[in-house]
Amino acid sequence: MIYLDHAAATPVATKVLEAMKPFFSAEFFNPSSAYLPAKRVRETYEKAKGEIANFVGAKGNDLIITSGATEANALAFTSVNGVNEARSENAKILVLETEHASVLNNAKKYGFETIRVDKTGLVDLADLERKLTDDVELVSVSLANNELGTIQPIAEIAQILREVRLERLRRGVLTQLLLHSDASQGLELIDLNVARLGVDLLTMNSGKVSGPKGVGALYVGRDVRLKPLIDGGGQERNLRSGTENVAGVVGFAKALELKKGHSSFARKKYLRLAEILKNELKNCAVEPVFLGNPKRQLANFLPLSFPGLDAERLILKLEEHEVYVSTGAACSASKGEPSRTLKAIGLSEAEIAGSLRLTLGVLNDEANVKEAGKIIAEVVNAEYRRVNE
Amino acid sequence: MIYLDHAAATPVATKVLEAMKPFFSAEFFNPSSAYLPAKRVRETYEKAKGEIANFVGAKGNDLIITSGATEANALAFTSVNGVNEARSENAKILVLETEHASVLNNAKKYGFETIRVDKTGLVDLADLERKLTDDVELVSVSLANNELGTIQPIAEIAQILREVRLERLRRGVLTQLLLHSDASQGLELIDLNVARLGVDLLTMNSGKVSGPKGVGALYVGRDVRLKPLIDGGGQERNLRSGTENVAGVVGFAKALELKKGHSSFARKKYLRLAEILKNELKNCAVEPVFLGNPKRQLANFLPLSFPGLDAERLILKLEEHEVYVSTGAACSASKGEPSRTLKAIGLSEAEIAGSLRLTLGVLNDEANVKEAGKIIAEVVNAEYRRVNE
Repeated sequence: MIYLDHAAATPVATKVLEAMKPFFSAEFFNPSSAYLPAKRVRETYEKAKGEIANFVGAKGNDLIITSGATEANALAFTSVNGVNEARSENAKILVLETEHASVLNNAKKYGFETIRVDKTGLVDLADLERKLTDDVELVSVSLANNELGTIQPIAEIAQILREVRLERLRRGVLTQLLLHSDASQGLELIDLNVARLGVDLLTMNSGKVSGPKGVGALYVGRDVRLKPLIDGGGQERNLRSGTENVAGVVGFAKALELKKGHSSFARKKYLRLAEILKNELKNCAVEPVFLGNPKRQLANFLPLSFPGLDAERLILKLEEHEVYVSTGAACSASKGEPSRTLKAIGLSEAEIAGSLRLTLGVLNDEANVKEAGKIIAEVVNAEYRRVNE
Repeated sequence: MIYLDHAAATPVATKVLEAMKPFFSAEFFNPSSAYLPAKRVRETYEKAKGEIANFVGAKGNDLIITSGATEANALAFTSVNGVNEARSENAKILVLETEHASVLNNAKKYGFETIRVDKTGLVDLADLERKLTDDVELVSVSLANNELGTIQPIAEIAQILREVRLERLRRGVLTQLLLHSDASQGLELIDLNVARLGVDLLTMNSGKVSGPKGVGALYVGRDVRLKPLIDGGGQERNLRSGTENVAGVVGFAKALELKKGHSSFARKKYLRLAEILKNELKNCAVEPVFLGNPKRQLANFLPLSFPGLDAERLILKLEEHEVYVSTGAACSASKGEPSRTLKAIGLSEAEIAGSLRLTLGVLNDEANVKEAGKIIAEVVNAEYRRVNE
């Protein structure tokens, strides 16, 4: 098998599972219990949170652990309409038109408007500035797009928001203006620091970085006021109740520990692998259109299109060779809807229909990406002959 | 170590962890991906859901998988104000005054009123009937109380609600009237069938039945309309988005499989162990007051009070002997608040201050409960001497 869909899911690292195991068995205690072994579990849990937070330059107390990135995004948006008495009647969220469904569909519960992207999937900063009216309380821009891997200029956006905040203050407009970024993609490839980025809220996802599924975290800046979606026993500073998933959080922390300090190495590795793969694709009868922003792209993303071919058929043919790739995000692909992202960057229908998302990761090496490139070229060429017969 | 706090947390069974393992590593795929190995993971996931549902006589499609019982409770309450145009302006939830914080604190977001219990923690049905005004859209009564183990007459409550529904219809009152039950405690000890119980919504908890933490499920009757708390990729029939926690759900299903058909055996075992433990407590200088309803109590619950002694101190002294027990629920105990439940059943302050919750489970046998009973008697007697010196 050659797996080229690391943006959809990653296997849990062996060391991660090893780190989790004690918390299923010997250390199974409820961290809220009063006796010593449970208190030790509490300590381990808080330490793991601290490590996850530290990965993005924050403290454990700044994190709310969630059941994944989707919940973290939903929780982030509860900051709207909540901070002070000066809130807007028509509170609004600005989101990128290419955001993942977990951003867009949660934003829908509030007033929201989309910010345009250019042909490479990069945020249109002029459009953002135009739409930053006084009603906007929150701007949500993912760190990197989940279909194109386009890396957004979060720090630049933060700077724009800072200026707007100052300007609002000068006019006596007191509505909050927060910046949220979903860092589900790229967490391991971009050196992240919440202070340097200037975000108030940051979503992290365990399942995309060789940690267990069902675990995520939301970094929450000190001045941000959230409302719990899930209330109860008061865990996570009353913002996310429920018995803590200790094994999951320990696993997430371990997964990040294994990635820490390796982003530069990983970037170089993936760029090299991508070159090898691309080189094999030169043998395709249909010249691939490479998508996204070559200057600002996650190194493990290789989104591309074979205009005139049917990507759904390509996936099935590749599957026969045990090469696994995707079109768009796994969750939207499974519903057979055409990609919003690819429409937004202005691709033609033929380009959208022929587009694949290849994403590299821990299961790839030079040999298997070369092999994958060969198989893709063969499959593309066979499909090309079939279509043009 | 002798663990007598199975209501707070249970160790994951070895077979459960074994069943989960493949879904961390070889079968790590995103169940929404389009290729064959991912589709096989999807099948396994749906099969596991089917098995969890089957445990309570339901179908997999009737279940929404959540990150635990707390989230399931929060999601259940979104049924309020949602079903039809005939909804009440002052929609209200009735909850038992002794409900867990995850029921009470989520109910607080809606209008809610509490139903009284008697001195054994049993629902006061007359009080329920009195409070069943036309504004009530939902009644939430846990299957068994988490501090006393008192088993509520859910089927009887369902019958009352059926009559009220009919009576409302006769008067042209169209507001819904649903019944929710949190079955976090007792899932393995009571033969449950949602149809026989007559519930519209039922909360299930993996972490209390030797399954992994961070997994729960909400059974949702066909006529119930929920609103998602967490939106996004559209998983769980659009009611609970987020990449599925496949390993967790497989583990929950396996945990229930191991319990299936054993409830009668388990009940007998725990009653026998409780007798052995109680027998040792006859040597206590302070006669224990046994709490709850002896006729309707979970077999593994042994809540009791040593009036005049300080339970917090007892826990610490028992900890020195590696005997682990709790006061009240783990999550509220950690905040040092006096138990709402014990107040509600009319205990005196001295009785509340001296109350312990012993809950038996997989880690107990005749030898260690006998030993525990001896140690508790010793500790109680030492404390009694200290207080009365």
